[in-house]
Amino acid sequence: MLKTPYLLFLGDAPDQLAAKVAQGIRDWRPEFALGQLRLEACKADMKLPDMTIAEARDAGAATLVVGAANRGGVISKDWVRTLVEAAEAGMDIASGLHNRLSDIPELVAAAERAGTQLFDVRLPTVSYPIADGKPRTGKRCLAVGTDCSVGKMYTALAMEREMRGRGMKATFRATGQTGILITGSGVPLDAVVADFMAGSVEWLTPDNDADHWDLIEGQGSLFHPSYSGVTMALVHGGRPDALVLCHEPTRTHMRGLPHYQLPSLEALRDLALATARIVNPDVTVAGIAVNTAALGDEEARQCLEKIEARMGLATVDPFRDGAARLVDALQA
Amino acid sequence: MLKTPYLLFLGDAPDQLAAKVAQGIRDWRPEFALGQLRLEACKADMKLPDMTIAEARDAGAATLVVGAANRGGVISKDWVRTLVEAAEAGMDIASGLHNRLSDIPELVAAAERAGTQLFDVRLPTVSYPIADGKPRTGKRCLAVGTDCSVGKMYTALAMEREMRGRGMKATFRATGQTGILITGSGVPLDAVVADFMAGSVEWLTPDNDADHWDLIEGQGSLFHPSYSGVTMALVHGGRPDALVLCHEPTRTHMRGLPHYQLPSLEALRDLALATARIVNPDVTVAGIAVNTAALGDEEARQCLEKIEARMGLATVDPFRDGAARLVDALQA
Repeated sequence: MLKTPYLLFLGDAPDQLAAKVAQGIRDWRPEFALGQLRLEACKADMKLPDMTIAEARDAGAATLVVGAANRGGVISKDWVRTLVEAAEAGMDIASGLHNRLSDIPELVAAAERAGTQLFDVRLPTVSYPIADGKPRTGKRCLAVGTDCSVGKMYTALAMEREMRGRGMKATFRATGQTGILITGSGVPLDAVVADFMAGSVEWLTPDNDADHWDLIEGQGSLFHPSYSGVTMALVHGGRPDALVLCHEPTRTHMRGLPHYQLPSLEALRDLALATARIVNPDVTVAGIAVNTAALGDEEARQCLEKIEARMGLATVDPFRDGAARLVDALQA
Repeated sequence: MLKTPYLLFLGDAPDQLAAKVAQGIRDWRPEFALGQLRLEACKADMKLPDMTIAEARDAGAATLVVGAANRGGVISKDWVRTLVEAAEAGMDIASGLHNRLSDIPELVAAAERAGTQLFDVRLPTVSYPIADGKPRTGKRCLAVGTDCSVGKMYTALAMEREMRGRGMKATFRATGQTGILITGSGVPLDAVVADFMAGSVEWLTPDNDADHWDLIEGQGSLFHPSYSGVTMALVHGGRPDALVLCHEPTRTHMRGLPHYQLPSLEALRDLALATARIVNPDVTVAGIAVNTAALGDEEARQCLEKIEARMGLATVDPFRDGAARLVDALQA
């Protein structure tokens, strides 16, 4: 569990997209985002107060979150200097980068001297149990996709926001590093050892109030040969009561696999239900979330209408329309 | 890849079952089994020449394989003394125990001095790739089960033996520690990090001659909530041309999960085909292997006949009947 509030470190991000972790925190947990720290070359801007390390410390920042991707997988000297300064000022450091904070000797030394912590959120730090498949109290909704990167995290976060806005009990459960940095906790599922995958998802979504919903971030796709095992562990470890099907209508092939076509939403519905029913015979599909970012307004509207008529399920783009109709479907 | 031949270390195994790794090597790779070493309390016997370390070394043993389970997860002093002696005599040591050889300081020191290697086969030592889902040359058969521990490894080994006996090109591909110790190589799939599971199976079953068959050892079950993600990675990484359904007809619930019933063979067939077709639309079910060890001869015969009539697929107990009819089905 990361300590809040955060100072968002944007490094020398060349554009807004390179700072998507910071953007996610800004969008979904604005109350965590105290300020931003940008190096000279930075072209990203979260419209937050620019702060030095000293200013952030005085303002009460508890953790510096690396909110941007670094170039070429190497953390530059400029970055290290800033991170060391933050550690020396008493802040924890959290990162989802591929290269680890714990592999930077001068940063490790600074954190030890200052008594602060380094969080590489790609690395599991918990001894997860083997899954036991038992029912748990409370409700769970899992986002499953026709492919990777079709908006599963966004959909679950949008549903959490809508539910909380209605006064419902709801918790987004992060299963990837961006989600973990945004919300401050979760399971880095793609880095968990095979035997403990489903158990880590059970651990993440424990017994809860009968009227509480976990909105579980999906990973991969049952139809993506590289990652389908991870998705299967989410379906069985998450034991969802409801599924939301996620789709990107303009994608021409499975992500990273030009030789694989996307499955139809019907095929996703059927396989997701067939696998989810093994652990929960009462599971249903609540609705469909379509990422229409690549379409114009009118095209997007037609696309959603066509899918809704074909599938007979509430179909929205949560970014354009919000997640209200998906939450209505869960409540119905 | 372990060096052969082996000296099988049976420790103080209290009965034959406790030495099942040694038994597997004796049954399936007798040409690897040079001799056995038993401590005084040992009640297991592989009907191999009893050898001291010195005798085994003089006979050419390259690797001492720990062929028995240890009690209570602790390697006793007697065991350590023998293992150190073997390392000092120039043998590699291989083990599938939960506690690691590499955690025994005096054994590590002895191996370093002697220039020999310690193989903890539960630990992956390869950097596996991310799966790319591409077709590979050669043929692959995967054993899938209604549950864990229903005879998937035995079935694949029996099919390999039958195929080799017919002069066919066939390789058993181990995905668990017993299989790895039996055949000397493989992937400890349950210990692989989630993102690389399917890739490790692709790595294990690379391009091969067009008429070569990989017989892939199955793990878990698509219906076992604790391990279904591992099974899914085998189905997609293995990209099987043929499936063999494995079943144990007297089991009353899923292994370790009293609250889960076993699926029917029909349900296994349908879900295994639905998932395998994602990567190979031409996959078929070749036949059914039933572990009838708990039944008498007549009961077993009736059980197999009933399943064969119901499913319309060659149905055998490979232990009682051999795997000839399964191989016939693959060839047909």
